[in-house]
Amino acid sequence: MKVLISKKSGRIYYPDETKDYHCKEGILLKNDLNSNKNSIFSNTNKEFILLESNNFDFRQKIKRGPQIITTKDLGYIIARTAINKDSIIVEAGGGSGSATSFFSKLVKKVYSFEIVEEHYKIIKKNLEYLNCENVELFNIDIKEKLKEIEKFDLLFLDLPNPHEIIKENINNLKKGNYIVCYLPSISQIQTLSDSILNRDDLYLEEITEIIIRNWTVYKQISRPNHQKEIDHTAFLVFIRKN
Amino acid sequence: MKVLISKKSGRIYYPDETKDYHCKEGILLKNDLNSNKNSIFSNTNKEFILLESNNFDFRQKIKRGPQIITTKDLGYIIARTAINKDSIIVEAGGGSGSATSFFSKLVKKVYSFEIVEEHYKIIKKNLEYLNCENVELFNIDIKEKLKEIEKFDLLFLDLPNPHEIIKENINNLKKGNYIVCYLPSISQIQTLSDSILNRDDLYLEEITEIIIRNWTVYKQISRPNHQKEIDHTAFLVFIRKN
Amino acid sequence: MKVLISKKSGRIYYPDETKDYHCKEGILLKNDLNSNKNSIFSNTNKEFILLESNNFDFRQKIKRGPQIITTKDLGYIIARTAINKDSIIVEAGGGSGSATSFFSKLVKKVYSFEIVEEHYKIIKKNLEYLNCENVELFNIDIKEKLKEIEKFDLLFLDLPNPHEIIKENINNLKKGNYIVCYLPSISQIQTLSDSILNRDDLYLEEITEIIIRNWTVYKQISRPNHQKEIDHTAFLVFIRKN
Amino acid sequence: MKVLISKKSGRIYYPDETKDYHCKEGILLKNDLNSNKNSIFSNTNKEFILLESNNFDFRQKIKRGPQIITTKDLGYIIARTAINKDSIIVEAGGGSGSATSFFSKLVKKVYSFEIVEEHYKIIKKNLEYLNCENVELFNIDIKEKLKEIEKFDLLFLDLPNPHEIIKENINNLKKGNYIVCYLPSISQIQTLSDSILNRDDLYLEEITEIIIRNWTVYKQISRPNHQKEIDHTAFLVFIRKN
Repeated sequence: MKVLISKKSGRIYYPDETKDYHCKEGILLKNDLNSNKNSIFSNTNKEFILLESNNFDFRQKIKRGPQIITTKDLGYIIARTAINKDSIIVEAGGGSGSATSFFSKLVKKVYSFEIVEEHYKIIKKNLEYLNCENVELFNIDIKEKLKEIEKFDLLFLDLPNPHEIIKENINNLKKGNYIVCYLPSISQIQTLSDSILNRDDLYLEEITEIIIRNWTVYKQISRPNHQKEIDHTAFLVFIRKN
Repeated sequence: MKVLISKKSGRIYYPDETKDYHCKEGILLKNDLNSNKNSIFSNTNKEFILLESNNFDFRQKIKRGPQIITTKDLGYIIARTAINKDSIIVEAGGGSGSATSFFSKLVKKVYSFEIVEEHYKIIKKNLEYLNCENVELFNIDIKEKLKEIEKFDLLFLDLPNPHEIIKENINNLKKGNYIVCYLPSISQIQTLSDSILNRDDLYLEEITEIIIRNWTVYKQISRPNHQKEIDHTAFLVFIRKN
Repeated sequence: MKVLISKKSGRIYYPDETKDYHCKEGILLKNDLNSNKNSIFSNTNKEFILLESNNFDFRQKIKRGPQIITTKDLGYIIARTAINKDSIIVEAGGGSGSATSFFSKLVKKVYSFEIVEEHYKIIKKNLEYLNCENVELFNIDIKEKLKEIEKFDLLFLDLPNPHEIIKENINNLKKGNYIVCYLPSISQIQTLSDSILNRDDLYLEEITEIIIRNWTVYKQISRPNHQKEIDHTAFLVFIRKN
Repeated sequence: MKVLISKKSGRIYYPDETKDYHCKEGILLKNDLNSNKNSIFSNTNKEFILLESNNFDFRQKIKRGPQIITTKDLGYIIARTAINKDSIIVEAGGGSGSATSFFSKLVKKVYSFEIVEEHYKIIKKNLEYLNCENVELFNIDIKEKLKEIEKFDLLFLDLPNPHEIIKENINNLKKGNYIVCYLPSISQIQTLSDSILNRDDLYLEEITEIIIRNWTVYKQISRPNHQKEIDHTAFLVFIRKN
């Protein structure tokens, strides 16, 4: 996948390089898009930087498809749980593979569960596309398999009812490590919080909302952007295992 | 380093395990702190979970020391720049090693520059403590060395005047990759933005502020916390290299 | 002006009552819109509450027209400057009369200056529409008249260059009271701040940004709204006169 | 009550003028505090601006006492409900009179209910101190009296269980007008929302959280303040009467 950045406007495009690309700032030829050039020109003679995409670009591109977990949330999960390149992550839900591919590039191994077949196919395709070879993807309910997986460092649940998973056997989550639940609604957190109130082996360490604001600082302008950056995605719930 | 979590209050402590530890909830014995027990008891018979610390705990502990980069900001940097376990990061400034050690655990190699000798010594000690063996630490001005380093994937600058570094030879930063500047004040961003206005090889892709809110959801309570979570740290400026 | 609220969806409409009104939820007849009924029905048999509009509704209706000052900002200005029903306010700029009419309903007297004739006409029409009889509206530069106005309690400036007004004779602003400037960009505040650094009679007491988040709490849903509520409008600068 | 502002630091003090006042920046004499001078000097020869206080200063001064409603929230209530100088407000709860005195200065008449005798006495004293002559204050449960009050424009409830009040006879709240509830916790809003789900005469129009950020823009500094400005106070729930 390629990324095009307009030299003039700074706008970023994700062209389909199998054909000519039409955007607000002109037309870019298929041949140019598939070249090794550093910069290419539109029919209106505007210059565009031509780059290979990275994992961030990929998430931007699939934004219009299935629900994805945003960059702000993925970053905080990794930093807050102290995951590292030797970690093993187990995750379930999501449906697009945006979290799966993000984790895959950072850690040793990812086990991913997606029960809906249609979503499973999307994730599979996206993981192949991004060469995520360290992911084992299952089209089954995570509850069927959770207790058989090797010792792991993080359980990430992007599902409406994480309390049902947590009731299961989570012996293989290492002691001191986290279950992270991604929940859009406070009422879901209340259900989750109630479900572990009396458990000795788990406690709810942190509930966090990450808010992002983008700014424009350019010549005489220095202000928060008008666009819809500060939108609610979900709350992150960090449950630590004893 | 050990972490103690009170079973009752959920409060987290970072005891010095070379002696008995006194906290609000009682006294914990040195022998217990150095044991392999899963949970230990204070003189007031309160139970505490005893865990090995991770990199996140380390950042919490050094909070009272030199200025550190917060978890919310570190996470977003990694996720936004699509850094992965094969990446090479060059960074300068900071003074405590909190960013250095964070990066070290996630990527292949970190080159770190700290010009102030006193800070250099703190970072050195912290890196040894955390077994960050993939860091090459220099007590020199980054400008002296920047052009000699191997090809790298991210240049992270936690310095008041990043525009002075960026003027230098940054040929070894890979094309399409980022310089990230960590700046507390809008006026600093104005200076930086002006300094690259006329450069063909760099453009300012994003200016971001990450705001974090913590919540309490516990029985009949469900509200943002009263504590000082949403404090300003710094803005993150993402400059992409062409 | 009338307000229609759908009983089912809670959606609010501001119909033009000189003709039949078409909305997503059906058609409402002109005769019904002009009736004294409490509730009326669309052709699809949906019930709507029919209300006389208030000043808040008016601001919502003119949102698509000239730039208006939002409710969140207007409220804070009034509360922060301790304005009351005996106050006299002098204001300049804006262009729609949204602030003027808001102030008018709360205080004794408003002097309003709008130099652009087209905006002046809009404001004049809006003030007549809302029966704001205690407003004296001038289509001249505020600088020509400022020193002749009676003693007043607040000077509100919704202009790009308030420092040029503040240089003028502001003897009639009561001691201890405020000049409030409404500025979208930090760079404008820097200019303003610099311009009064050496003045004995003025100091900058507070720079504030008001952020609003709307929530949905309905049955099993309890979350911040997806809509674009938290958008940047402007910073409020409170300068106190000695 | 007097307000002192240090010319040098801009710091604001609320001295007890019945005796000499000691602050970080020196000692100010009782005689000076009670004079008509515009500016007075401390024993350390620092100049202070001497002003009569306003209602905002009053709220700042009583901050350390009983819980008060903040300026950000009070302003939004007034602006959102389109209250004006002819309005009649009924309110209950609170305990300090900060909302009562704020409303009193803006509207025609306030009916205030405080069931706790100790709080009633504090409110009474504060209202006398601020010359709020248009307030009728009752030391009884609002439920006993609500249906006997003249037609009113706003019902403001700063109580943990507003749904119990709303069950009562609220015939005298004018049609199209608001009940505003001030609630710190989402779970309280859930209870309130559920309680009116099946009522034809009321619907929940808006749930709002007002967040305030203060900035410093001074010479080369332009950044959000470090202080604890963005703290949670409460959510505002606007219920409209049909």
